[in-house]
Amino acid sequence: MPTTERGTTSGRRLAHPAVAEIRLEAVLHALADPVRLRIVRDLADGHADMACIAFDLPVSKSTTTHHFKVLREAGVIRQHYEGTSRMSRLREDDLEARFPGLLTAVLEGARRSAGSVSPSPSPSPSA
Amino acid sequence: MPTTERGTTSGRRLAHPAVAEIRLEAVLHALADPVRLRIVRDLADGHADMACIAFDLPVSKSTTTHHFKVLREAGVIRQHYEGTSRMSRLREDDLEARFPGLLTAVLEGARRSAGSVSPSPSPSPSA
Repeated sequence: MPTTERGTTSGRRLAHPAVAEIRLEAVLHALADPVRLRIVRDLADGHADMACIAFDLPVSKSTTTHHFKVLREAGVIRQHYEGTSRMSRLREDDLEARFPGLLTAVLEGARRSAGSVSPSPSPSPSA
Repeated sequence: MPTTERGTTSGRRLAHPAVAEIRLEAVLHALADPVRLRIVRDLADGHADMACIAFDLPVSKSTTTHHFKVLREAGVIRQHYEGTSRMSRLREDDLEARFPGLLTAVLEGARRSAGSVSPSPSPSPSA
Protein backbone atom coordinates (compact mmCIF):
# COMPACT_ATOMS: atom_id res chain seq x y z
CA MET A 1 0.00 0.00 0.00
CA PRO A 2 2.36 2.71 -1.16
CA THR A 3 -0.15 5.50 -1.28
CA THR A 4 -3.08 6.92 0.59
CA GLU A 5 -6.24 8.24 -0.95
CA ARG A 6 -7.74 11.58 -0.15
CA GLY A 7 -11.34 12.38 -0.86
CA THR A 8 -12.45 15.58 -2.49
CA THR A 9 -15.66 17.50 -2.38
CA SER A 10 -16.41 16.51 -5.93
CA GLY A 11 -15.91 12.83 -5.15
CA ARG A 12 -12.86 12.43 -7.38
CA ARG A 13 -9.88 11.00 -5.57
CA LEU A 14 -6.21 11.65 -6.17
CA ALA A 15 -3.49 9.43 -4.68
CA HIS A 16 -0.90 11.07 -2.46
CA PRO A 17 1.87 9.32 -0.54
CA ALA A 18 1.92 9.92 3.21
CA VAL A 19 4.98 11.79 4.48
CA ALA A 20 6.76 8.66 5.68
CA GLU A 21 6.13 7.02 2.31
CA ILE A 22 7.78 9.76 0.25
CA ARG A 23 10.80 8.16 -1.44
CA LEU A 24 14.00 10.09 -2.06
CA GLU A 25 14.57 8.57 -5.51
CA ALA A 26 11.03 9.46 -6.55
CA VAL A 27 11.42 13.06 -5.41
CA LEU A 28 14.77 13.42 -7.19
CA HIS A 29 13.33 11.86 -10.35
CA ALA A 30 10.32 14.17 -10.20
CA LEU A 31 12.60 17.21 -9.89
CA ALA A 32 15.06 16.02 -12.58
CA ASP A 33 13.02 17.47 -15.43
CA PRO A 34 13.08 21.09 -16.58
CA VAL A 35 9.30 21.38 -17.00
CA ARG A 36 8.57 19.85 -13.59
CA LEU A 37 11.27 21.99 -11.99
CA ARG A 38 9.61 25.03 -13.54
CA ILE A 39 6.25 24.01 -12.07
CA VAL A 40 7.82 23.56 -8.63
CA ARG A 41 9.53 26.94 -8.85
CA ASP A 42 6.28 28.64 -9.80
CA LEU A 43 4.47 26.95 -6.91
CA ALA A 44 7.27 27.93 -4.52
CA ASP A 45 7.05 31.54 -5.65
CA GLY A 46 3.28 31.59 -5.34
CA HIS A 47 2.96 29.81 -1.98
CA ALA A 48 -0.66 29.05 -2.81
CA ASP A 49 -2.92 26.71 -4.70
CA MET A 50 -2.61 27.10 -8.45
CA ALA A 51 -4.72 25.58 -11.20
CA CYS A 52 -2.78 23.54 -13.75
CA ILE A 53 -4.14 25.87 -16.40
CA ALA A 54 -2.37 28.80 -14.74
CA PHE A 55 1.04 27.50 -15.74
CA ASP A 56 2.38 28.76 -19.03
CA LEU A 57 4.30 25.64 -20.02
CA PRO A 58 5.81 24.85 -23.44
CA VAL A 59 4.17 21.41 -23.60
CA SER A 60 0.79 19.95 -24.51
CA LYS A 61 -2.07 19.69 -22.05
CA SER A 62 -1.70 15.93 -21.74
CA THR A 63 2.03 16.24 -21.12
CA THR A 64 1.33 18.90 -18.51
CA THR A 65 -1.11 16.56 -16.80
CA HIS A 66 1.52 13.82 -16.83
CA HIS A 67 4.12 16.09 -15.23
CA PHE A 68 1.72 17.08 -12.45
CA LYS A 69 0.91 13.43 -11.85
CA VAL A 70 4.61 12.55 -11.49
CA LEU A 71 5.05 15.39 -8.99
CA ARG A 72 1.96 14.36 -7.03
CA GLU A 73 2.78 10.66 -6.88
CA ALA A 74 6.32 11.47 -5.76
CA GLY A 75 4.91 13.53 -2.90
CA VAL A 76 6.20 16.87 -4.17
CA ILE A 77 2.78 18.48 -4.67
CA ARG A 78 -0.72 18.03 -3.31
CA GLN A 79 -3.66 18.31 -5.69
CA HIS A 80 -7.38 18.65 -5.21
CA TYR A 81 -10.32 19.61 -7.32
CA GLU A 82 -12.17 22.89 -7.12
CA GLY A 83 -15.08 22.38 -9.46
CA THR A 84 -13.49 21.18 -12.67
CA SER A 85 -10.10 22.74 -11.92
CA ARG A 86 -7.34 20.65 -10.46
CA MET A 87 -5.47 22.81 -7.98
CA SER A 88 -1.86 22.18 -6.98
CA ARG A 89 0.21 23.15 -3.97
CA LEU A 90 3.80 22.41 -3.07
CA ARG A 91 4.19 20.04 -0.08
CA GLU A 92 6.94 22.20 1.38
CA ASP A 93 6.40 21.24 5.03
CA ASP A 94 6.06 17.54 4.25
CA LEU A 95 9.24 17.52 2.16
CA GLU A 96 11.12 19.49 4.81
CA ALA A 97 10.03 16.98 7.45
CA ARG A 98 11.04 14.02 5.33
CA PHE A 99 14.20 15.35 3.64
CA PRO A 100 15.38 18.50 5.46
CA GLY A 101 17.02 21.09 3.25
CA LEU A 102 16.46 19.22 0.00
CA LEU A 103 13.75 21.35 -1.59
CA THR A 104 15.46 24.56 -0.49
CA ALA A 105 18.74 23.44 -2.07
CA VAL A 106 17.03 22.39 -5.29
CA LEU A 107 15.09 25.67 -5.59
CA GLU A 108 18.24 27.69 -4.92
CA GLY A 109 20.08 25.59 -7.51
CA ALA A 110 17.31 26.17 -10.02
CA ARG A 111 17.49 29.91 -9.46
CA ARG A 112 21.23 29.86 -10.06
CA SER A 113 20.82 27.76 -13.19
CA ALA A 114 18.06 30.00 -14.54
CA GLY A 115 20.30 33.00 -14.16
CA SER A 116 23.16 31.09 -15.79
CA VAL A 117 25.33 32.58 -13.10
CA SER A 118 28.66 30.93 -12.64
CA PRO A 119 29.20 30.52 -8.89
CA SER A 120 32.83 31.51 -9.17
CA PRO A 121 35.02 33.15 -11.81
CA SER A 122 37.75 30.60 -11.21
CA PRO A 123 37.76 27.33 -13.11
CA SER A 124 37.51 23.95 -11.47
CA PRO A 125 40.68 23.14 -9.56
CA SER A 126 42.40 19.99 -10.66
CA ALA A 127 41.71 17.08 -8.37
CA MET B 1 31.13 22.11 -26.03
CA PRO B 2 29.34 20.80 -22.96
CA THR B 3 32.24 18.94 -21.47
CA THR B 4 35.94 19.23 -20.93
CA GLU B 5 38.46 16.48 -21.37
CA ARG B 6 41.03 15.54 -18.80
CA GLY B 7 44.13 13.59 -19.70
CA THR B 8 45.38 10.68 -17.68
CA THR B 9 48.76 9.15 -17.25
CA SER B 10 47.68 6.15 -19.26
CA GLY B 11 46.52 8.32 -22.15
CA ARG B 12 42.86 7.39 -21.80
CA ARG B 13 40.58 10.39 -21.46
CA LEU B 14 37.35 10.70 -19.54
CA ALA B 15 34.93 13.60 -20.07
CA HIS B 16 34.04 15.72 -17.05
CA PRO B 17 31.90 18.87 -17.05
CA ALA B 18 33.52 21.97 -15.59
CA VAL B 19 31.89 23.29 -12.43
CA ALA B 20 29.93 26.01 -14.21
CA GLU B 21 28.67 23.44 -16.72
CA ILE B 22 27.17 21.09 -14.11
CA ARG B 23 23.41 21.04 -14.73
CA LEU B 24 20.92 20.70 -11.89
CA GLU B 25 18.61 18.37 -13.82
CA ALA B 26 21.54 16.11 -14.70
CA VAL B 27 22.68 15.92 -11.08
CA LEU B 28 19.16 15.16 -9.85
CA HIS B 29 18.71 12.53 -12.56
CA ALA B 30 22.05 10.96 -11.66
CA LEU B 31 21.05 10.76 -8.00
CA ALA B 32 17.50 9.52 -8.71
CA ASP B 33 18.55 5.89 -8.91
CA PRO B 34 19.08 3.57 -5.94
CA VAL B 35 22.29 2.01 -7.28
CA ARG B 36 23.84 5.38 -8.13
CA LEU B 37 22.75 6.78 -4.78
CA ARG B 38 24.45 3.83 -3.11
CA ILE B 39 27.67 4.56 -5.02
CA VAL B 40 27.54 8.21 -3.97
CA ARG B 41 26.93 7.27 -0.33
CA ASP B 42 29.87 4.87 -0.37
CA LEU B 43 32.11 7.53 -1.90
CA ALA B 44 30.90 10.09 0.65
CA ASP B 45 31.68 7.70 3.51
CA GLY B 46 35.10 6.88 2.10
CA HIS B 47 36.22 10.41 1.22
CA ALA B 48 38.83 8.93 -1.11
CA ASP B 49 39.37 7.46 -4.54
CA MET B 50 37.71 4.09 -4.94
CA ALA B 51 38.01 1.60 -7.77
CA CYS B 52 34.72 0.66 -9.42
CA ILE B 53 35.50 -2.94 -8.53
CA ALA B 54 35.48 -2.05 -4.83
CA PHE B 55 31.73 -1.47 -4.87
CA ASP B 56 29.60 -4.45 -3.99
CA LEU B 57 26.65 -3.63 -6.23
CA PRO B 58 23.75 -5.94 -7.13
CA VAL B 59 24.13 -5.31 -10.85
CA SER B 60 26.29 -6.55 -13.73
CA LYS B 61 29.71 -5.09 -14.50
CA SER B 62 28.43 -3.35 -17.63
CA THR B 63 25.52 -1.85 -15.71
CA THR B 64 27.92 -0.69 -13.02
CA THR B 65 30.08 0.98 -15.67
CA HIS B 66 26.99 2.71 -17.04
CA HIS B 67 26.00 4.03 -13.63
CA PHE B 68 29.48 5.44 -13.03
CA LYS B 69 29.38 7.08 -16.46
CA VAL B 70 26.05 8.77 -15.68
CA LEU B 71 27.48 10.07 -12.40
CA ARG B 72 30.67 11.30 -14.09
CA GLU B 73 28.95 13.01 -17.01
CA ALA B 74 26.54 14.73 -14.61
CA GLY B 75 29.50 16.13 -12.66
CA VAL B 76 28.82 14.14 -9.49
CA ILE B 77 32.06 12.12 -9.54
CA ARG B 78 35.52 12.50 -11.02
CA GLN B 79 37.20 9.44 -12.50
CA HIS B 80 40.74 8.67 -13.57
CA TYR B 81 42.74 5.60 -14.38
CA GLU B 82 45.37 4.05 -12.15
CA GLY B 83 46.83 1.33 -14.32
CA THR B 84 43.82 -0.61 -15.51
CA SER B 85 41.61 0.45 -12.60
CA ARG B 86 39.18 3.30 -13.02
CA MET B 87 39.16 5.25 -9.78
CA SER B 88 36.24 7.41 -8.66
CA ARG B 89 35.92 10.30 -6.27
CA LEU B 90 32.94 12.40 -5.28
CA ARG B 91 33.11 16.02 -6.52
CA GLU B 92 31.90 17.31 -3.16
CA ASP B 93 33.56 20.74 -3.36
CA ASP B 94 32.49 21.30 -6.97
CA LEU B 95 28.88 20.37 -6.21
CA GLU B 96 28.86 22.53 -3.08
CA ALA B 97 30.15 25.48 -5.11
CA ARG B 98 27.57 24.96 -7.85
CA PHE B 99 24.52 23.88 -5.81
CA PRO B 100 25.12 24.68 -2.12
CA GLY B 101 23.55 22.26 0.31
CA LEU B 102 22.21 19.91 -2.34
CA LEU B 103 24.55 16.95 -1.91
CA THR B 104 24.40 17.23 1.88
CA ALA B 105 20.60 17.17 1.82
CA VAL B 106 20.51 14.21 -0.56
CA LEU B 107 23.02 12.21 1.51
CA GLU B 108 21.12 12.95 4.71
CA GLY B 109 17.89 11.95 2.98
CA ALA B 110 19.47 8.73 1.77
CA ARG B 111 20.62 7.91 5.29
CA ARG B 112 17.10 8.45 6.60
CA SER B 113 15.61 6.32 3.84
CA ALA B 114 18.12 3.53 4.40
CA GLY B 115 17.21 3.37 8.05
CA SER B 116 13.51 3.45 7.13
CA VAL B 117 13.15 5.91 9.95
CA SER B 118 10.00 7.94 9.93
CA PRO B 119 11.00 11.55 10.61
CA SER B 120 8.16 12.02 13.04
CA PRO B 121 5.77 9.76 14.92
CA SER B 122 2.86 11.99 13.99
CA PRO B 123 1.06 11.50 10.68
CA SER B 124 0.88 14.12 7.97
CA PRO B 125 -1.37 16.99 8.94
CA SER B 126 -4.23 17.55 6.58
CA ALA B 127 -3.56 20.30 4.08
